[in-house]
Amino acid sequence: MIKVVIIGSGNVAQHLIAAFQNSQKSGTEIELVQVYSRHARSVSHLIDLEKITADFSTLAEADVYIISVTDDAIAEVSSSLLFKNRLVVHTSGSVSLNAMNENNRRGVFYPLQTFTKNKAVDFKTIPICLESENGTDYQLLDRVAKSITEKVFAINSQQRKALHVAAVFVNNFTNHLYQLGQEICRENQVSFEILKPLIAETVQKIMVLSPQEAQTGPASRNDTATIEAHEAFLAEGNHLNIYKILTQSIQENGKKL
Amino acid sequence: MIKVVIIGSGNVAQHLIAAFQNSQKSGTEIELVQVYSRHARSVSHLIDLEKITADFSTLAEADVYIISVTDDAIAEVSSSLLFKNRLVVHTSGSVSLNAMNENNRRGVFYPLQTFTKNKAVDFKTIPICLESENGTDYQLLDRVAKSITEKVFAINSQQRKALHVAAVFVNNFTNHLYQLGQEICRENQVSFEILKPLIAETVQKIMVLSPQEAQTGPASRNDTATIEAHEAFLAEGNHLNIYKILTQSIQENGKKL
Repeated sequence: MIKVVIIGSGNVAQHLIAAFQNSQKSGTEIELVQVYSRHARSVSHLIDLEKITADFSTLAEADVYIISVTDDAIAEVSSSLLFKNRLVVHTSGSVSLNAMNENNRRGVFYPLQTFTKNKAVDFKTIPICLESENGTDYQLLDRVAKSITEKVFAINSQQRKALHVAAVFVNNFTNHLYQLGQEICRENQVSFEILKPLIAETVQKIMVLSPQEAQTGPASRNDTATIEAHEAFLAEGNHLNIYKILTQSIQENGKKL
Repeated sequence: MIKVVIIGSGNVAQHLIAAFQNSQKSGTEIELVQVYSRHARSVSHLIDLEKITADFSTLAEADVYIISVTDDAIAEVSSSLLFKNRLVVHTSGSVSLNAMNENNRRGVFYPLQTFTKNKAVDFKTIPICLESENGTDYQLLDRVAKSITEKVFAINSQQRKALHVAAVFVNNFTNHLYQLGQEICRENQVSFEILKPLIAETVQKIMVLSPQEAQTGPASRNDTATIEAHEAFLAEGNHLNIYKILTQSIQENGKKL
């Protein structure tokens, strides 16, 4: 058995705990032996109380320690561990492997997904990006990751940074565009619900076409009349500003092709 | 029976023809009696050749004529019709009802979706936005629309303009953000495929949460360290520019709440 300890009780930690508990039910070689949480009740719905500790001096012996805390706290938590030369990984997309204390063998175990409290996700479809300082540790992390997902990738720190920034574009920023769309609807007494089938189809297209192939609309076909009508319609400063900048970016992208 | 003629053979026209043909199979009160197309072969895979005409003088008598051509051509096509006082509608999100010739009773029959050639869509889930000059015509359009979709909305010209602009934000612009994300991946030799489960989940969240509730990421939590690291990472001008503007927009939106 490969013994795993999870340190943390936030959103990502909770989803990881649930995923390991699920995979244990179907009998894998992975055993989640302990969870470190300052407040037992944050995770007591996911794992037996006797497997929860709030004291670093009572951390169980394990093959891998997964630190799943806020980015700011990773360095400090890694320095609080009282043992040496064990495999310790964090789950962040933006923190360097080197940010962790050198007392232990270091690695990264980054599940690339947006996790929402109380919204279940099918962990099997979530990509986990792995990094380690040596090949043996990589193989161990690979076995741990494959117990909860079908999608495991070797990603170095530079690539992970790129993925993290790109994730902001395709997740945070697109969600913000939904919000701007909703504002435009609300200002004109139209239900945002009418746009939801379009939003769903936009994503279904990207699953089978490249973004270039899927691009439609006035900017991509240089339809100046429609662009001008839209700009005249958007009285509010921020909406108009973002409309102009993204329209220009689409048009310049067309030239690049 | 309500007799329908479709004028046009582009993307939207083809999807409409297919939708009416499908609904006829399951026996509705709607009959697609004719399609006007300058080139019969564009639509001959969808409807019998004898129901296709390229001559306005041979247009069949019908209860509603659906003009589904490019925005620029709507006014001209509506003026080419050789009859008077019949119900004529267009399918555009951005053209005013008044752009059509006054010889006939005018209306709008706008299916709000992104249509791709050779990619089937389930028409039943597509919202159709209706507008007309009088109530009797609206009731007729409502029956026609309900033969192909479950989602029919009364939308005036101002609301339709708002929907069309909002659609650019949630469809064209989000798709462009996918392209920028793909560029960032490519520049760093990472597969864009790794981001697809995140893209899918972003949309699944918006189906059950408001955009405000669904918003995550460094901008929404004012994580200055991560924002600065991302900005340092984005050497290329356009990516950095768009990152800054959308980050600022998210932050200002947070203040508004």
